[in-house]
Amino acid sequence: MSEVAKSTQSASKKAALKGERAREADHPSSQVVTFGVDRPLRLDCGVDLAPFQIAYQSYGTLNADKSNAILVCHALTGDQHVANTHPVTGKPGWWQTLVGPGKPVDTDRYFVICSNVVGGCMGSTGPSSINPATGKPWGLDFPVITIPDMVRAQAMLIDHFGISKLFAVVGGSMGGMQTLQWTAAYPERVFSALVIACSTRHSAQNIAFHELGRQAVMADPEWQEGRYYEQDRLPRRGLGVARMAAHITYLSDAALHRKFGRRLQDRAVPTFSFDADFEVESYLRHQGSTFVERFDANSYLYLTRAMDYFDIAADHHGKLADAFRGTSTRFCIVSFTSDWLFPTAESRAIVHALNATSARVSFAEIETDKGHDAFLLDEPEFFAIARAFLESAASTHGLTSET
Amino acid sequence: MSEVAKSTQSASKKAALKGERAREADHPSSQVVTFGVDRPLRLDCGVDLAPFQIAYQSYGTLNADKSNAILVCHALTGDQHVANTHPVTGKPGWWQTLVGPGKPVDTDRYFVICSNVVGGCMGSTGPSSINPATGKPWGLDFPVITIPDMVRAQAMLIDHFGISKLFAVVGGSMGGMQTLQWTAAYPERVFSALVIACSTRHSAQNIAFHELGRQAVMADPEWQEGRYYEQDRLPRRGLGVARMAAHITYLSDAALHRKFGRRLQDRAVPTFSFDADFEVESYLRHQGSTFVERFDANSYLYLTRAMDYFDIAADHHGKLADAFRGTSTRFCIVSFTSDWLFPTAESRAIVHALNATSARVSFAEIETDKGHDAFLLDEPEFFAIARAFLESAASTHGLTSET
Repeated sequence: MSEVAKSTQSASKKAALKGERAREADHPSSQVVTFGVDRPLRLDCGVDLAPFQIAYQSYGTLNADKSNAILVCHALTGDQHVANTHPVTGKPGWWQTLVGPGKPVDTDRYFVICSNVVGGCMGSTGPSSINPATGKPWGLDFPVITIPDMVRAQAMLIDHFGISKLFAVVGGSMGGMQTLQWTAAYPERVFSALVIACSTRHSAQNIAFHELGRQAVMADPEWQEGRYYEQDRLPRRGLGVARMAAHITYLSDAALHRKFGRRLQDRAVPTFSFDADFEVESYLRHQGSTFVERFDANSYLYLTRAMDYFDIAADHHGKLADAFRGTSTRFCIVSFTSDWLFPTAESRAIVHALNATSARVSFAEIETDKGHDAFLLDEPEFFAIARAFLESAASTHGLTSET
Repeated sequence: MSEVAKSTQSASKKAALKGERAREADHPSSQVVTFGVDRPLRLDCGVDLAPFQIAYQSYGTLNADKSNAILVCHALTGDQHVANTHPVTGKPGWWQTLVGPGKPVDTDRYFVICSNVVGGCMGSTGPSSINPATGKPWGLDFPVITIPDMVRAQAMLIDHFGISKLFAVVGGSMGGMQTLQWTAAYPERVFSALVIACSTRHSAQNIAFHELGRQAVMADPEWQEGRYYEQDRLPRRGLGVARMAAHITYLSDAALHRKFGRRLQDRAVPTFSFDADFEVESYLRHQGSTFVERFDANSYLYLTRAMDYFDIAADHHGKLADAFRGTSTRFCIVSFTSDWLFPTAESRAIVHALNATSARVSFAEIETDKGHDAFLLDEPEFFAIARAFLESAASTHGLTSET
């Protein structure tokens, strides 16, 4: 195939992907619950968002007394497609290692729900959705949302199912923040919580990396102050740079060394140029460019902002333990040794606060060199802990294996 | 003053700074040595660079037998203005804490030279210099340079002074790389070497951060494929984003936490917007925007590339110790506990290689929470070690206090 033909094919593939992604924002390949103007989502910023929709996937069967539901909360660039083929990328679900028949989060036994967060771009209302007031995409007119806002929307979805108490809430990274927020905001509705690789508030370094990513997006003239949808433009390079930065923070120095070291890309000697000489450069460029095809740039701004604002202690007069006072939820907190984005010290702070309230909590630090990404990867020790924690909780909750 | 007047003043100040910086590239406020077409700089990429110029500052007096010269090598965004007011920014020299009368690198006693690296933008030939073949700035037509190239140019400068052997070479970060390269390439010309916060080869993670910065610059349409000079444009936002990313890596999580934590910028409550709500955001934006005024974007590409290519062991059939075999240079290697860009393990690798060759080497890891930046900051323990190392070497070298 000629270079021109290849490039044309790649361009048309990109256009098709862009179309698919845009379609997912308003007409997702998921089930959708729409909340009308009579049921607004009260946001922390003071705005009532209405109408709005939440797109979700579910797996397994809800039992008669609705006691076997597990809510999975997704991370920053995740979505509701936990355990099914992704409708845009065609790749397996992002947590298919953990969630599925016979898996630690066993869909033969539990009813698993995952919804796209409000502010996202895969079918729940967000900046790429149509603003009913204007008939155009919201863009930056979309109100700033917070982790508590996301959780409030999820609670409305759970109400819609008529589930009064979730058997478990499970999440890593931004999903872990939502899980913690569930236990703080609705302690009576969460029997158990599996909180992975996260913190109760975003650190200065993490805010710094997010701000870097946002500035990269906003520096791209194609961003058009967030109005790129209407002009059929895309801040491709800015979002790509943001993704590259984020991706470095998801891995560890050791993982990058093991994966790439200083190996050259398809060449024996350096080219003495600004080509992607090193494999790690080529890999990062690829991560940046593919991300753009599946994720909305404005959603990236909104969701990183929500993580930055997250601070459970601040919502409880600066006392973290007060967020969990009197809780009867069972907690399992998991961290990974090489995760420098959410280091073990952050998980220990959660454990200490829970200990101070005499909550039931177990804690595991998993030895791995895979960095923050480890929570999405094949980590048998983590899987074993998740399985044991949920089985023990299920037994206490009166869920038999035959449920 | 009205907002408009302020903005106009700021714009004219920016224009003035830009003019000053551009002037420094060809007509620096430093002494300059020009090497004619008969004395080319043989570059690793195979190109002979000629003519070229090296801009340098010197402090103190060269003694009669030329035995008291110390070469200071600057880091990525540093320059030759080690211990004098910077001609563009008006700020103190970047290492005035370490270098000066009575300081550990004592200019009352030693003759201290620092030259702008080749590829830089403060008067030594680089991509912003005029290409004699075209009469226009080189831009990306400038050949890719390496750390050995920088050192080869410095050796020509030292020849120009008639100095056969340097009493010491001193440098941190990219300056440390040059120092190591000096000891590997010209062992007989270096009596002692003080190597701070660096490594013998750039790690995959460090290459990744550099590539991120380069992509940010190149993504800026103002970059114009490197031809922004001629069009009076400036990839301001791209270089700003690159600097923000780099700046995060120069600090530690602890330093960012201590300096900023989650404090809000001049406000009591978050604005629920994409303004710089957090102090750390405002600080990073400032770092990004001021850097653009004093540094050339193409030089940033070239110098980061030089660091990425650096790999002393690769130049010696993969055996690091072979780079130092038979050396009589005295080494002092220094690292900082919270430096995650060049962690202590990298320094230990240098020490191990030197030990394997029975070289004289002392090693110190300084306890600090300031991250990689610590080598530029007030670190009394580091200063004491630098002073003691140089004094001991001076005594062995026959340099009396009265020199």
